[in-house]
Amino acid sequence: MKRPLRLLVIGGVAAGTKAASKARRDDPAMEITIISDMPYVSFIGCGLAYYIGGVVERRESLFARSPEKFRDEHNIAILLNHRAESINTYDQTVRVADLKNGGTLTLPYDRLLIATGAHPVISDIPGVTLPGVHPLHTIMDADAIRDRIDRGGARQACIVGGGFIGIEMAENLLRRGLEVTLFEMADHLLPGLYDPDVSALIRAEVEAKGVRVLTGTRAERFDSGPDGTVRTAFAGGRAYPCGLGIIATGVRPTVQLAREARITIGPTGAIRVDSRMETSVRGVYAAGDCAETTHLVSRKPFWFSLGSTANKQGRIAGANIAGGRKTFDGVLGTSILKVFDKATGRTGLSEREASEAGFNLVSATVTTSTIGHYYPGSGKITLKLVADRGSKRLLGAQAFGDDKVDKVIDTVAALLTGGVPVPEITNLDLAYSPPYATALGTVLVGAELLEKKMGI
Amino acid sequence: MKRPLRLLVIGGVAAGTKAASKARRDDPAMEITIISDMPYVSFIGCGLAYYIGGVVERRESLFARSPEKFRDEHNIAILLNHRAESINTYDQTVRVADLKNGGTLTLPYDRLLIATGAHPVISDIPGVTLPGVHPLHTIMDADAIRDRIDRGGARQACIVGGGFIGIEMAENLLRRGLEVTLFEMADHLLPGLYDPDVSALIRAEVEAKGVRVLTGTRAERFDSGPDGTVRTAFAGGRAYPCGLGIIATGVRPTVQLAREARITIGPTGAIRVDSRMETSVRGVYAAGDCAETTHLVSRKPFWFSLGSTANKQGRIAGANIAGGRKTFDGVLGTSILKVFDKATGRTGLSEREASEAGFNLVSATVTTSTIGHYYPGSGKITLKLVADRGSKRLLGAQAFGDDKVDKVIDTVAALLTGGVPVPEITNLDLAYSPPYATALGTVLVGAELLEKKMGI
Repeated sequence: MKRPLRLLVIGGVAAGTKAASKARRDDPAMEITIISDMPYVSFIGCGLAYYIGGVVERRESLFARSPEKFRDEHNIAILLNHRAESINTYDQTVRVADLKNGGTLTLPYDRLLIATGAHPVISDIPGVTLPGVHPLHTIMDADAIRDRIDRGGARQACIVGGGFIGIEMAENLLRRGLEVTLFEMADHLLPGLYDPDVSALIRAEVEAKGVRVLTGTRAERFDSGPDGTVRTAFAGGRAYPCGLGIIATGVRPTVQLAREARITIGPTGAIRVDSRMETSVRGVYAAGDCAETTHLVSRKPFWFSLGSTANKQGRIAGANIAGGRKTFDGVLGTSILKVFDKATGRTGLSEREASEAGFNLVSATVTTSTIGHYYPGSGKITLKLVADRGSKRLLGAQAFGDDKVDKVIDTVAALLTGGVPVPEITNLDLAYSPPYATALGTVLVGAELLEKKMGI
Repeated sequence: MKRPLRLLVIGGVAAGTKAASKARRDDPAMEITIISDMPYVSFIGCGLAYYIGGVVERRESLFARSPEKFRDEHNIAILLNHRAESINTYDQTVRVADLKNGGTLTLPYDRLLIATGAHPVISDIPGVTLPGVHPLHTIMDADAIRDRIDRGGARQACIVGGGFIGIEMAENLLRRGLEVTLFEMADHLLPGLYDPDVSALIRAEVEAKGVRVLTGTRAERFDSGPDGTVRTAFAGGRAYPCGLGIIATGVRPTVQLAREARITIGPTGAIRVDSRMETSVRGVYAAGDCAETTHLVSRKPFWFSLGSTANKQGRIAGANIAGGRKTFDGVLGTSILKVFDKATGRTGLSEREASEAGFNLVSATVTTSTIGHYYPGSGKITLKLVADRGSKRLLGAQAFGDDKVDKVIDTVAALLTGGVPVPEITNLDLAYSPPYATALGTVLVGAELLEKKMGI
């Protein structure tokens, strides 16, 4: 009888747990162990800001599955509070430190999945390690932030960084009654993702809800008060009262273990994998926030941290680890963000990205009703489409509106995946009834304007 | 100088007005006349049931544009209350009856658009013409139904037909305080569109809200009371109190004029057109509910009455009438229906249609959260996907749920248009954030189950 394969998974959040579960389903005999350097596994990082804001009420609901469930229902062993210290790809072992009891173990593997995720970029400005200044990446971060608010330790919050986490935290801290100031170094919010015109709509909503937004402004320093915790933030040469500092200056892939094991790191700084999610070392896979992927529109190496992508890559890695032949071809850079009472989403290339990628671009921005304008609850949605003039190929979309942003972005993401040319999109047969859409729908109205601007 | 082309449009609802406007935009010199046998143009038929229910409050909001607006802003002449009596394709004239003042005119044309729409099927059961028994197709129908309810002439309504109009009317009449009984001859609601399993979900919602649903039941007769208006409906051998009868047994394309002019009628009973929306007679176009189209999945002639399709076809016809070269390749049979507090939608082929079309089909039905299950407002959505086992090609979808049905259906419609194979759909990069979606999303979970059932 063949000895069962031993699968070791480093990292127990989205990609790691998904891959382990999939490998178990496809190979009931495999010996599977997940190593987590945290006291839990399988938590939903995307819900943290809403937990702080009280929108998500129960802390337990942030855990998708318990370690016991993995053990009892899936026969997957979980080593909590254990940190992988090094990978030996020759011996096929991982050296693991027991963070709770001390000591190290050396675990052998036949297949290894690196799912070490990403870590927040913490700038090195003075005071960034003061009590009361936090990134938001783990449940522990969320616990600490909630604790500081619950104890009344913060009336004013300063957020460094106008990306996803920064904007989500602005909303949720405002909901908790704090005054919120947000510093963004670039000249517009979400600078890597949105063109300035769509970003201006986002900023207007954030400011209308009462957040002080300072773009082109660099956070310089945090100072502490008499209790030793943060009391003042300095930015753009001015001082701001600050009982809570949030560092939301982005995340980077966590690849040190892989790099030290001489596994190839790609140009984005994440671990290079093939479409089967296998790294440069045979038998070693990577998935989730630590892994590089391909942008399906630009066809270039791409990296973006997202729980949904981690789940999909984990599934593919798990299937292939169990002997399957599944592929993950890449992503579109799709994302969506709640912005108080509005939403904003994007997929594919922005106008700037398309221009940088050398496309002869044409863009069209339309504003339509979300649903029949005469039907109760109708609102407005603005959609910017970007296309290539020569090939009539759609390249990307950005949307902002009261509602239906997720629908419009998902529809465009599906169109990009299918490579549907712009003229065909103007005839797309989408679901129409007044409570759900306008007769043509936002995507078609946008495609019609694109067509017109292309002179078709 | 070339004489301007004369365009005559028969029909002033969606396709006719859209085509006229598009032709005007593309050819400022054209002489354009719309003939309408009603006292108005450009009304939104899809809003009628909601106007009766009081959800849409203002009658004026059902008119997209006024005749004056067409005349003054677009230089389009409108002949209201004029009915086209015959088309002479040899002389290129249309004989028109003046319904208000009597008499007939003969109007010459260089280009003709037939946009005569559809008409309700009225069964010939006794009593169907009694006062208080109405189809719902025009504003006049809606006015008459509202009037009867407003005067207190109806406490119980009987609806004949469990399709779109029947279910929309059930909801809106219940909202107006009527007891509602619905008769459907087939064994399930929406029989032509939904498989029995998804239809059962729809029925459960309709019944839970208080509608008495009788499937497999044929309406036999309406009887009048002492005031000469309807008082009783007989169906399946039983009598039902009935102060208002709604005939919702479907619609058929209105093609008599075209048929008499020897313009080719297709196998669906609608006017055959090519992809430019031109009929068998050169210079004569047809668009909207009177025109046949192609089903993009089955590739067979197809007919379905829908305002959104009429708008798109009208746009293509108008562009081509003005000398353009645009095509309308077909539809997916996409539709969506509000079912009280739920929604149901479909696109592509149902399991029955796919089976009849000879596909080696595999279907998968999944139920997921609409959004992050821990996020406020989350609900359930059920999605049934149908695919072809051999080619791994997706064929269609049916959905029912609390929310996000429009998104899921539009996403699948875009995937069908792009021909994205099932394995690629399992990796689709859709917009994820807990307020809008689950990490994988309903479509991907469905595609994963399809893949599994295909043994991929």
